[in-house]
Amino acid sequence: MTTSNPTTRAPRPYLALAGWVLLCFAAASFGGLFMPGEWYAGLKKPSWNPPARVFGPVWTALYTMMAVAAWLVWKRGGFAAQRRPLALFLVQLALNAAWTPLFFGLHWTGVAFAEIVLLWLAIAATIAAFRPVSRVAAWLLVPYLTWVGFAAVLNFTLWRLNS
Amino acid sequence: MTTSNPTTRAPRPYLALAGWVLLCFAAASFGGLFMPGEWYAGLKKPSWNPPARVFGPVWTALYTMMAVAAWLVWKRGGFAAQRRPLALFLVQLALNAAWTPLFFGLHWTGVAFAEIVLLWLAIAATIAAFRPVSRVAAWLLVPYLTWVGFAAVLNFTLWRLNS
Repeated sequence: MTTSNPTTRAPRPYLALAGWVLLCFAAASFGGLFMPGEWYAGLKKPSWNPPARVFGPVWTALYTMMAVAAWLVWKRGGFAAQRRPLALFLVQLALNAAWTPLFFGLHWTGVAFAEIVLLWLAIAATIAAFRPVSRVAAWLLVPYLTWVGFAAVLNFTLWRLNS
Repeated sequence: MTTSNPTTRAPRPYLALAGWVLLCFAAASFGGLFMPGEWYAGLKKPSWNPPARVFGPVWTALYTMMAVAAWLVWKRGGFAAQRRPLALFLVQLALNAAWTPLFFGLHWTGVAFAEIVLLWLAIAATIAAFRPVSRVAAWLLVPYLTWVGFAAVLNFTLWRLNS
């Protein structure tokens, strides 16, 4: 799956795209496992809290863009040539996966807030590392960074309002 | 996929087992993406560093046991009844996925050490939460806890020897 020569085209680029989509939706599935149930319904919420039905479609779009972005970078020589940007991408994906069990699973809203701040920083670092490789890939992550910034403010507000 | 009645058997338990296996091997794939290459070969190593070929089979066995353990707990009423133990399990799985890109991808051996200590604690908490639900599930994670303890000592040693 990797090649050490960055000018060589990867052998099976569309198979790799499927791989990136699978990996991103595996992280997404961590979120799908915890339905916002009674606990979430019972939280004090700010007036600007989006309705629950917004989150599914938004995250689906963001995970799809994320997968395409990673694939665009991976196409430029695979893991051998793009080790650092792809490693940053995978770190942010793991941090993304950890947030839902912390917030919706364990109800550790304070820990989840600390974690989402790390996630925001990891996404920003990933965008910075993607930019010289593929500007399109970097731009594909900007809506995600914006949304996670908003989610972090929301997480902070829910934490403070309910503790 | 979830049921609120812990005495009811889940409708499709073997499909769920496949789901847990997929989820655990998605985390495992983070590790497979980074081959220990020149950088790892060039590190100063302690005399007791296991040969590289040991890690693949060991991790395959550990991820399989992990998936079975989570499934055994999930069978007792799904996410509704086992929210906390399964959330802890998913947190440790995400921390597990983050370690390889930190260590082999970014070569951040110090950060990776801090992260693997958190992973060890999360596994220990998962075992404690699994124990009252299924003793077998708890025991299935003990080799994993032991191996991660050893990996943490190895990570610490490689960090100190090479900085």
